[in-house]
Amino acid sequence: MADILHRIGCVAPLDDVYQAIVTPERIAEWWTTDTVGKSEVGGRLAFRFGEAGGFDMEIVELDPAGHVRWRVADGPAEWIGTEIDWRLERRGEWTIVLFKHEGWREQVEFMHHCSTKWATFLLSLKYLVEQDRGRPWPDELKVSDWT
Amino acid sequence: MADILHRIGCVAPLDDVYQAIVTPERIAEWWTTDTVGKSEVGGRLAFRFGEAGGFDMEIVELDPAGHVRWRVADGPAEWIGTEIDWRLERRGEWTIVLFKHEGWREQVEFMHHCSTKWATFLLSLKYLVEQDRGRPWPDELKVSDWT
Repeated sequence: MADILHRIGCVAPLDDVYQAIVTPERIAEWWTTDTVGKSEVGGRLAFRFGEAGGFDMEIVELDPAGHVRWRVADGPAEWIGTEIDWRLERRGEWTIVLFKHEGWREQVEFMHHCSTKWATFLLSLKYLVEQDRGRPWPDELKVSDWT
Repeated sequence: MADILHRIGCVAPLDDVYQAIVTPERIAEWWTTDTVGKSEVGGRLAFRFGEAGGFDMEIVELDPAGHVRWRVADGPAEWIGTEIDWRLERRGEWTIVLFKHEGWREQVEFMHHCSTKWATFLLSLKYLVEQDRGRPWPDELKVSDWT
């Protein structure tokens, strides 16, 4: 098993960052504009990226103190069954986001790509909560031929 | 053991990307302006980031066909003994960079941070070879309280 890890810090209240990863309308402002669903444990969120497809996530954990966890229920074969874990912590003026996309079966080239894309989307989340300047799909930062 | 993976694509000749990860003067334009050393197998490169310290890398592999490998000889305890592997491949108009920083003993918070920072430095490398717009330390993109 292999995991994608990231860490960003946002100069913003913890609850602002929490809402940005929990509320479909807010996720749509940093990840993909095509985000729908209901944020409740056992509920599902659907993220779409046009012709490239997308992901359905089951919500496993929702703790406003700073923990969110999704399980990938549908999407590319490499993603199904993996889990995405978000931990938020206050440190001084910062809200620290510890991100993990865990349970990849193999270190395939697509995992390399997703790791870099997650970094750019996490920075999009940071700019959203700090400056109201998120960059969700379809106008997100491109990193390669795989966009 | 745990690894940091990334993938970027550059619209640039493979040799331009190769030179940018092999030549100290070029590395200084996307990673840290304080890069010195000699690029030869068995040689060392020293990367410094002011008061934050830095890394000494021993060069393990240098293949202009598209493979470079460094071993961390000195730096933060978590980095010593880890290896950084670069593979370059041509695909149409693209040079694809498959990056791996491998051999982390534990998934510590610092590993999360380094993964996100590597993504931003790889994008700096991409902008350098495509548009001559690298962003090396000390003016690199900041991602958190750990800069």
